[in-house]
Amino acid sequence: MGNTLGNAFKVTIWGESHGKAIGCVIDGLPAGISLEWEEINKEIKRRIPGVYSYVSHRKEMDSFEVLSGYFNNHTTGTPLTVIIKNEDADFSSYEKIKDSMRPGHADYTGFIKYKGFNDYRGGGHFSGRITAPLVFAGAIARQLLKKKGISISSHIQQIGAICDKKYNPLGEKQDVLDCLSKSSFPVLDAVVEESMKKEIEKKMQNKDSVGGIVECMLQGVPVGLGNPFFDSVESVLSHALFSIPAVKGVEFGDGFAMAQGYGSNKNDIMQIEDGKIKMRSNHNGGILGGITNGMPLIFRVAIKPTPSIGIPQSTVNIKTKENTMLIIEGRHDPCIVPRVVPVVESVASIVLLDIYKLSQFE
Amino acid sequence: MGNTLGNAFKVTIWGESHGKAIGCVIDGLPAGISLEWEEINKEIKRRIPGVYSYVSHRKEMDSFEVLSGYFNNHTTGTPLTVIIKNEDADFSSYEKIKDSMRPGHADYTGFIKYKGFNDYRGGGHFSGRITAPLVFAGAIARQLLKKKGISISSHIQQIGAICDKKYNPLGEKQDVLDCLSKSSFPVLDAVVEESMKKEIEKKMQNKDSVGGIVECMLQGVPVGLGNPFFDSVESVLSHALFSIPAVKGVEFGDGFAMAQGYGSNKNDIMQIEDGKIKMRSNHNGGILGGITNGMPLIFRVAIKPTPSIGIPQSTVNIKTKENTMLIIEGRHDPCIVPRVVPVVESVASIVLLDIYKLSQFE
Amino acid sequence: MGNTLGNAFKVTIWGESHGKAIGCVIDGLPAGISLEWEEINKEIKRRIPGVYSYVSHRKEMDSFEVLSGYFNNHTTGTPLTVIIKNEDADFSSYEKIKDSMRPGHADYTGFIKYKGFNDYRGGGHFSGRITAPLVFAGAIARQLLKKKGISISSHIQQIGAICDKKYNPLGEKQDVLDCLSKSSFPVLDAVVEESMKKEIEKKMQNKDSVGGIVECMLQGVPVGLGNPFFDSVESVLSHALFSIPAVKGVEFGDGFAMAQGYGSNKNDIMQIEDGKIKMRSNHNGGILGGITNGMPLIFRVAIKPTPSIGIPQSTVNIKTKENTMLIIEGRHDPCIVPRVVPVVESVASIVLLDIYKLSQFE
Amino acid sequence: MGNTLGNAFKVTIWGESHGKAIGCVIDGLPAGISLEWEEINKEIKRRIPGVYSYVSHRKEMDSFEVLSGYFNNHTTGTPLTVIIKNEDADFSSYEKIKDSMRPGHADYTGFIKYKGFNDYRGGGHFSGRITAPLVFAGAIARQLLKKKGISISSHIQQIGAICDKKYNPLGEKQDVLDCLSKSSFPVLDAVVEESMKKEIEKKMQNKDSVGGIVECMLQGVPVGLGNPFFDSVESVLSHALFSIPAVKGVEFGDGFAMAQGYGSNKNDIMQIEDGKIKMRSNHNGGILGGITNGMPLIFRVAIKPTPSIGIPQSTVNIKTKENTMLIIEGRHDPCIVPRVVPVVESVASIVLLDIYKLSQFE
Repeated sequence: MGNTLGNAFKVTIWGESHGKAIGCVIDGLPAGISLEWEEINKEIKRRIPGVYSYVSHRKEMDSFEVLSGYFNNHTTGTPLTVIIKNEDADFSSYEKIKDSMRPGHADYTGFIKYKGFNDYRGGGHFSGRITAPLVFAGAIARQLLKKKGISISSHIQQIGAICDKKYNPLGEKQDVLDCLSKSSFPVLDAVVEESMKKEIEKKMQNKDSVGGIVECMLQGVPVGLGNPFFDSVESVLSHALFSIPAVKGVEFGDGFAMAQGYGSNKNDIMQIEDGKIKMRSNHNGGILGGITNGMPLIFRVAIKPTPSIGIPQSTVNIKTKENTMLIIEGRHDPCIVPRVVPVVESVASIVLLDIYKLSQFE
Repeated sequence: MGNTLGNAFKVTIWGESHGKAIGCVIDGLPAGISLEWEEINKEIKRRIPGVYSYVSHRKEMDSFEVLSGYFNNHTTGTPLTVIIKNEDADFSSYEKIKDSMRPGHADYTGFIKYKGFNDYRGGGHFSGRITAPLVFAGAIARQLLKKKGISISSHIQQIGAICDKKYNPLGEKQDVLDCLSKSSFPVLDAVVEESMKKEIEKKMQNKDSVGGIVECMLQGVPVGLGNPFFDSVESVLSHALFSIPAVKGVEFGDGFAMAQGYGSNKNDIMQIEDGKIKMRSNHNGGILGGITNGMPLIFRVAIKPTPSIGIPQSTVNIKTKENTMLIIEGRHDPCIVPRVVPVVESVASIVLLDIYKLSQFE
Repeated sequence: MGNTLGNAFKVTIWGESHGKAIGCVIDGLPAGISLEWEEINKEIKRRIPGVYSYVSHRKEMDSFEVLSGYFNNHTTGTPLTVIIKNEDADFSSYEKIKDSMRPGHADYTGFIKYKGFNDYRGGGHFSGRITAPLVFAGAIARQLLKKKGISISSHIQQIGAICDKKYNPLGEKQDVLDCLSKSSFPVLDAVVEESMKKEIEKKMQNKDSVGGIVECMLQGVPVGLGNPFFDSVESVLSHALFSIPAVKGVEFGDGFAMAQGYGSNKNDIMQIEDGKIKMRSNHNGGILGGITNGMPLIFRVAIKPTPSIGIPQSTVNIKTKENTMLIIEGRHDPCIVPRVVPVVESVASIVLLDIYKLSQFE
Repeated sequence: MGNTLGNAFKVTIWGESHGKAIGCVIDGLPAGISLEWEEINKEIKRRIPGVYSYVSHRKEMDSFEVLSGYFNNHTTGTPLTVIIKNEDADFSSYEKIKDSMRPGHADYTGFIKYKGFNDYRGGGHFSGRITAPLVFAGAIARQLLKKKGISISSHIQQIGAICDKKYNPLGEKQDVLDCLSKSSFPVLDAVVEESMKKEIEKKMQNKDSVGGIVECMLQGVPVGLGNPFFDSVESVLSHALFSIPAVKGVEFGDGFAMAQGYGSNKNDIMQIEDGKIKMRSNHNGGILGGITNGMPLIFRVAIKPTPSIGIPQSTVNIKTKENTMLIIEGRHDPCIVPRVVPVVESVASIVLLDIYKLSQFE
């Protein structure tokens, strides 16, 4: 259960890493939209392994096929379905270790929940690969948001102990956003990029992996979106963000740093500027009382280090109920953070479009 | 919209801070449960202002009345409704400043969203007071979880820059939990308690406020709860937690510290202990792949400093569209963190019971 | 479970026939609406026993109290909660027969489902009385629909074997609708009214009861409402209508008579009239492909005879598991059809407003 | 919107009659089920045009492909996705008449709702063809219900004015059910079958069409399923049944005939038989107070005559806004009732499984 997200823009995903195909059904697309396939393709490529130097061993082309909901070059208003075939799915390596529960993965919890019937190959339905259809749906949502003047951007804010600077909470200029969107390793501070890459390479050489933080910002969000009490903007965004594999923390605005703050330095003071209400600061990340306040919507997402590492690990054999040593073969991505960037943006786009649509009938 | 939470244990809340009453409807309670009113009362008292020395000026007794769903000392299986009357609701002070948007509050966003028709007195529906029915519902959920062997506990992990130690990720003994549950200012390290209280007093004297972090732990959670892809345990818990006023961050297990971690030191290694599968560490906070793994479920919640401070603040008058100075009169709680503790536990209890019930039909 | 209806206009109901109170929470009301309490009162009175000569023995005044969501004479946009106290709740008669399962009632199914803990007094949560809050919510929905040019009307189309004529499927004039709305026993053909009333009186004298059919029509519904595939207008309307106690059939347009029809006489032919598309007939009751087509939306609801009759009936004692004779004391309504009329209109108003709101974001 | 059905067993459908493919995603299947493909195939064939003598011109093989959720011959517990390719999709005939709104179809309402962007070929997403994936999902649900001792059966109860006898409301023997399930034209009374077929042939010769009624019965349903107030068994079943194209009426038990009944002859009297509670009659069709009562669950569904007829019809051209004559070419099914039979059974199976699963956590 739980494979459908959203109310007014509803995405249902399905598939396993090494099954025949993965895909999603999008319900709630308005009729008459001409989709920009180039843009969608670009987003999908951003999360494909192999375009960075730090790669998983799999060559995925992720060419997608739309099966419904698109006719005469426009959306029909009825469900749009996409499938992405799993072409390069070599799963021989998984057979050998299928009873050895990989630490940090969902092998053990999936085995128990699904009584051993889950598809264990490459994590099955738990694989990061399942985010590919999410990126497809997100690319469409992003396109619709753009027409409403809302842009979305993100960067790698931390890898290991190395930090990029944070977004200007009052917003960034378009050229900065453009620059980030074109990069396969988006950071605000170019110097930091090299250090981060070196850190990742070092981990790769050690057959280890490293985590990080992605910071995301939406600009142009109107005042008044969000549905308290339980469907605050933070609530619905975090709900979707925590469904991305490897996410272990989400914070808005100053987030956890709020704990050390005082009312006197964390309240965002409002003032009239050119006849309009503006805030001098944005400690609340664009959300007050669960509702957007017109400032840039800013949040950060903590990503744990890739659990698949080359270093031999102790674990249990689920069938024999004995301790065993596990060696995960092949090359594995020592840091998935760059690939999570487009997924975070996609999820945020899907959620914000949903909130936006819901606001129309209030 | 958005005032109903849950699927199998559904809570609908309503009311405004200074209206006639607040309350909730609980749908999905099994029939035949004899509720422990003493326990429920105890929980409700934990969040009442005035039992701590750091207080809001309002004297609420929060005596509740059950209107339906309880018959012959047992739940009927049909909706249980509770109302809590707003007895001490002096709102004269709010009339004076009703057009001055209090910084850090939902005054401005609420005004825009509801076109100026929202009840502005004391924050109306956005008030922390609305969490009282949530605590009522949570106290019931907690009781049901207890019968399934699941306990819930939390403590103040940080106030300003002062930190309590964190929970032992492998679990705490019952006497520690008992001790925390009896305290109106629960911390693990008694020394820290004094420093925290002094920090709060200092802020009160300065007419300022301070934020903090609440850490929560559920023990006895079985393996296999949670509904990926989109309804991971992290997803549904964070969704509900972010609906608590003033929450700006949520993290599970090592959370944001995962960013600095490596696969080699953050993977939780499994091993056989007395024929059972156990983990040597709990960096993932009891959740893997969005599903509980049998370890204690641990998360932390960042609370922003109370926006209501006595220091004069600049802001805007929403009617005249001019800048204005705002002085919030009366005594205000310089730190709501101790009062958020039972709310966090309540929300977590509601969500976990819902997840637990959903797991029964899988 | 199952006590919340709707998506964009959400009604949660609660209460038992002889508990302290009944009520509902309405979420999704737009802010800034000034409610016409006189109109709401009028609707509520339409379903109160005692205003007709055929009465249940209970004197209910059904005076309601709004506890939230209404401020300065306008809706706030946050949940509006109403309670109706159960003042004249004499339940001594129910104690005597509480173990004798009344035939045709939910006594037996409720006992099994809720393991004997359901409130058996007057049917508890299954009582027709629970429709009072629905009528309250429906009266509000009706008010909002009126502003959009949508009117709702219904009449008693059948009592026993006596039939009123049906609505003109192309619509009725306003004076006909006004006349129906003012009547406590609305029929189109005045002659039929007397026959129906005599039939009911006869049943009352025999300590028996009789069923009937209510026909309902919405005029002014725009083209294009409804959400196929699964949320067709027929789907969501029938869903709500079948939740009204005693409803056993729902049909749209020609309904079951369609079975005997041919394509050549049941297809509604379209034509241009004054530059607009009109239909010559309305066999489909204003809905094609699950979507409104601009014609009057017409449906009929079959109501079973009141199960509570004065005639002694054989049944079982649920505790002793023996056969027993049951005599239901007191006066009981020999025909609930007139009282169901405002409930049908209320439910239809709630559902149509919900569909209308959902259409705004498509 | 509206293409997802169910809560605990969730089916999302997509596709257009003449698009690349149609299909569905099933979420909520338990892990570890070995599906009986032969049975599924048999059900799918029951609704394929061409196996009866009364046929649509299209040759569909409806061979399906499972893309996810099935591994090592068992369900995985994660979403099962099926696609059915549209192989024989000749849509040249639709191009000619695409602006002529076919009476009785969703052409006009679909055009308005989707602003002219809907796929008009063969009704697009409104086509009866979209029920093929529903039958697939239903065949799986039926299999799961069978393991719980619940069987489902239906027959053609009426074609035009010709009626089959109704089910014995107290249940039918297995050999009767077996006989019905093997027939492509299931009726209880063999004599009636010939008359019905002659009626259909007559309509075909006249280039006309005819409607009918399908009666469905579920046996072995336990007492206590259903979720009042709003999710009564009648509510959720009718919701799904009215989403089947051409359905215009749904009634349970005696349904509309209840209107003519009295409490004294419509109340189902309970009695103890062999120590168990049984009912002497089943006027309520197995449901009391919205909850199953252990008797066979019986309902009837009214089907309108196929709107596509060969007789020339007057209609409007949606582009020119002028009246026009429409001639629908090719052979069309003069009566879809036999093909609706497996769809009704499928929908009922899906809904009952969903209700059954929900009952597990009460």
